[in-house]
Amino acid sequence: MIMADNHVRLVEVGARDGLQNEKRTLHPQIRVQLLEMLADTGLRTLEAGAFVSPRWVPQMAGSDDVLKALSVRPGVTWTALVPNVKGLEAAMAAGCREVAVFAAASEAFSQKNINCSIAQSLARYQDVMVLARDAGVRVRGYVSCVMGCPFTGYVKPEAVAAVSASLFAMGCHEISLGDTLGSGTPAATKSLIDACRQVVPVSALAGHFHDTYGMAIANIHAALEADVRIFDSSVAGLGGCPYSPGATGNVATEDVIYLLNGLGMTHGVDLDALIDVGEFINAQLGRETASRVSRALLAKRGRLQPS
Amino acid sequence: MIMADNHVRLVEVGARDGLQNEKRTLHPQIRVQLLEMLADTGLRTLEAGAFVSPRWVPQMAGSDDVLKALSVRPGVTWTALVPNVKGLEAAMAAGCREVAVFAAASEAFSQKNINCSIAQSLARYQDVMVLARDAGVRVRGYVSCVMGCPFTGYVKPEAVAAVSASLFAMGCHEISLGDTLGSGTPAATKSLIDACRQVVPVSALAGHFHDTYGMAIANIHAALEADVRIFDSSVAGLGGCPYSPGATGNVATEDVIYLLNGLGMTHGVDLDALIDVGEFINAQLGRETASRVSRALLAKRGRLQPS
Repeated sequence: MIMADNHVRLVEVGARDGLQNEKRTLHPQIRVQLLEMLADTGLRTLEAGAFVSPRWVPQMAGSDDVLKALSVRPGVTWTALVPNVKGLEAAMAAGCREVAVFAAASEAFSQKNINCSIAQSLARYQDVMVLARDAGVRVRGYVSCVMGCPFTGYVKPEAVAAVSASLFAMGCHEISLGDTLGSGTPAATKSLIDACRQVVPVSALAGHFHDTYGMAIANIHAALEADVRIFDSSVAGLGGCPYSPGATGNVATEDVIYLLNGLGMTHGVDLDALIDVGEFINAQLGRETASRVSRALLAKRGRLQPS
Repeated sequence: MIMADNHVRLVEVGARDGLQNEKRTLHPQIRVQLLEMLADTGLRTLEAGAFVSPRWVPQMAGSDDVLKALSVRPGVTWTALVPNVKGLEAAMAAGCREVAVFAAASEAFSQKNINCSIAQSLARYQDVMVLARDAGVRVRGYVSCVMGCPFTGYVKPEAVAAVSASLFAMGCHEISLGDTLGSGTPAATKSLIDACRQVVPVSALAGHFHDTYGMAIANIHAALEADVRIFDSSVAGLGGCPYSPGATGNVATEDVIYLLNGLGMTHGVDLDALIDVGEFINAQLGRETASRVSRALLAKRGRLQPS
């Protein structure tokens, strides 16, 4: 059973990690509208963009416009992914007070994804950390492939803990552990958290689960049992077409909230309002929701009588 | 962590609970082919039909032909649902050595679904139990709505335990606890098992989860942690169209096996072969799989290189 603190903080990554993996590219104005609607539901930490080359990630083009247009709200943090100092400078110029850097727990994935070794990526982020600290900007550290690598398979929890410890020591306030493949299961999740909490306070660990194998909710529950209280998720499960083979979307925020409600945990998010936001963004993208909770509750809304 | 016995027995309900909730009705020959293929994957207990009126459940018409045509295999049990003594007689005439009866934990659901109160249904099953015992036929007891009723909402674990205790006392060797709505979450699952194991040995309890809200795998994990070692599931998540609102299919057998593999538990089923069976039956039904594991692994099979 889950004993400790009852409140969970959700990091809504739909407008970045989600949208950058959808085929259709949305105009910055639509992304601003999405983000404002998401904040209206009660979400307090929201990834809003990425300061990367639009040649590589066209879906994130105009992230500076997005960040600049977002309203200032007490308690709400708009964040952005930055690959280097140049990205950080652009993010800060757009008003960002929190950014994220992206490392991997697998050497092969690091090479293929960001074209350098894990050690080289950490060295590159040193400059980002220094500039951010001087400017009072918080930096979140992502670690990908925490439960498996598409190129080399099994990833040891100790390897994840080592990268997490480095990022934390460099000054990241929070480490998001990403099951990029979505291949993890609950026992592996517990082993992972057990290893990482040896080197990073568990209160600074976040779970970032993809639902490719349908294990995300079970893994989140296992992480909750291991005292993790921060989770990344995407409205409507943005991030992969759910009806095409190999879909690899983030776990749907709606499904996480349903789980938390069932466990009697607090989160501050209005589920019904969130389902409406999911409908909005799905219409923009011409996709169907990947959230089972949304599908079930929308069907219920449409029903005149129970059946 | 899961401490006790490491082996899980799966009850494959795809050819009955699954198919009877699919729109397209399949010829008995196709159902026989499906069942033989399923048994080839290593599944040992398989629901093969229902001896109910084909006017109410056309998908199960010809269940006697199905049961008669199935091969005799050491260690394999073909079962059928029977609503009454007449059904039991027909099942026995077709060679059934195990049948199942269907009760509910909610009065309202019992009335709407089988047109009598819970007590009346149990009384009706008394005659079934007597005849079955005399013939040496085992009877499995289903309890539906164990974590919620579509008409009255919340269902107390104590209500489920009471029906379970009655069925067990009447001679059912196994009680399958069905989350008909698929609305349960892990904490509720644990409370449910805790209540039921007070009155029925936990080794005689089975979990039967629908995946409507995407919670089935997390609930199965919670039930495993509470020592349950028998689970019902459907190949490909048969039992509801996954792409229509309000889909209410059984949890996919493939997804359960993937979970068990990740937990280091044994089950005796060949996952790759099962995915092939899923492809076969989906083609017959003109549907896509509801199994995320199947979708992910089929995508992987089609890939020449990792990406």
